[in-house]
Amino acid sequence: MRASRPAVHPVEAPPPAPPPPAQAQGQDQEQADGDVVTQPRGVRMKDPPGAPGTPAGLGLRLAQAFFAAAALAVMAATNDFPSVSAFSYLVAAAILQCLWSLSLAIVDIYALLVKRSLRNARAVCIFTIGDGITGTLTLGAACASAGITVLIGNDLNICAENHCASFETATAMAFISWFALAPSCILNFWSMASR
Amino acid sequence: MRASRPAVHPVEAPPPAPPPPAQAQGQDQEQADGDVVTQPRGVRMKDPPGAPGTPAGLGLRLAQAFFAAAALAVMAATNDFPSVSAFSYLVAAAILQCLWSLSLAIVDIYALLVKRSLRNARAVCIFTIGDGITGTLTLGAACASAGITVLIGNDLNICAENHCASFETATAMAFISWFALAPSCILNFWSMASR
Repeated sequence: MRASRPAVHPVEAPPPAPPPPAQAQGQDQEQADGDVVTQPRGVRMKDPPGAPGTPAGLGLRLAQAFFAAAALAVMAATNDFPSVSAFSYLVAAAILQCLWSLSLAIVDIYALLVKRSLRNARAVCIFTIGDGITGTLTLGAACASAGITVLIGNDLNICAENHCASFETATAMAFISWFALAPSCILNFWSMASR
Repeated sequence: MRASRPAVHPVEAPPPAPPPPAQAQGQDQEQADGDVVTQPRGVRMKDPPGAPGTPAGLGLRLAQAFFAAAALAVMAATNDFPSVSAFSYLVAAAILQCLWSLSLAIVDIYALLVKRSLRNARAVCIFTIGDGITGTLTLGAACASAGITVLIGNDLNICAENHCASFETATAMAFISWFALAPSCILNFWSMASR
């Protein structure tokens, strides 16, 4: 019941508006629940900044998608990235990260436009698992690329015959994308655990 | 107050034993708290398997420490690992992981011996942050080493003049250590968020 009933609450609750008669019973029920302050109902709580369905959450998603796309573009612009497996893996992980973040950005835009809350148990669970998987893949790809880049640039000193600057830029973009993903993942997991 | 008062409960609560007279007042206080079922007190809840202070949690910690030590030993046994930055980083991350997991294993053993619960807000917060940091470092080191290993073995095919088997074994051990760390971190974060 809790998972399937959409809550049509505005993101910022209007302070003292009288409830319309059609929802009076539901409001009374929630008012009664509100007296027991130790039971969080989820839909009554204000979303923390960065949670899905908030402008900060949308900004995080757009930042993730932008930096993943930048990593993808910079890496794909070098002509010799397929010769190293880790760089190919970075391209694949950046594509996945970009698609995932763009999808959730669209969901966030929809939620902001229709002023729906996204604090839905099933949605938050899906967001958390997806964030965890894409975050692990992006971090792994960034670390593998960083290992190769440091090997080429510092250990072997063969930057003259390689695109070290492009590799380093793409790796840095992937790391920044992961740093933007971490707050989303932690906030989603927190709101999943605290309901 | 909640963080500093140790609760001397056995891990499995004995069913209907009468309380000894010296603790009667404390038991009554907690009985009164138990009537308010919507307020989780933490120390009254049964720890999930894998949480700190449980045998499964101790097993996870020992597995993390064992596999991190194995990665460290296998990598340090090769004489040319300092020539690659990623392999040196793997050694450093494995040392940190091993020390952290052994420390928490000792805490778990102590908690099991004196039958104390470790569901303490401050302790769980420290465990979660430490698990997150060491887990990220271990995953990053394992991925960087995997990138180098794949580059040496598959992309360049120069395994004949390198210790590919040792590098692959150490990388695999680091990944297994991270896989053993992930449940601990998730469980700690969950119990931190759900109180």
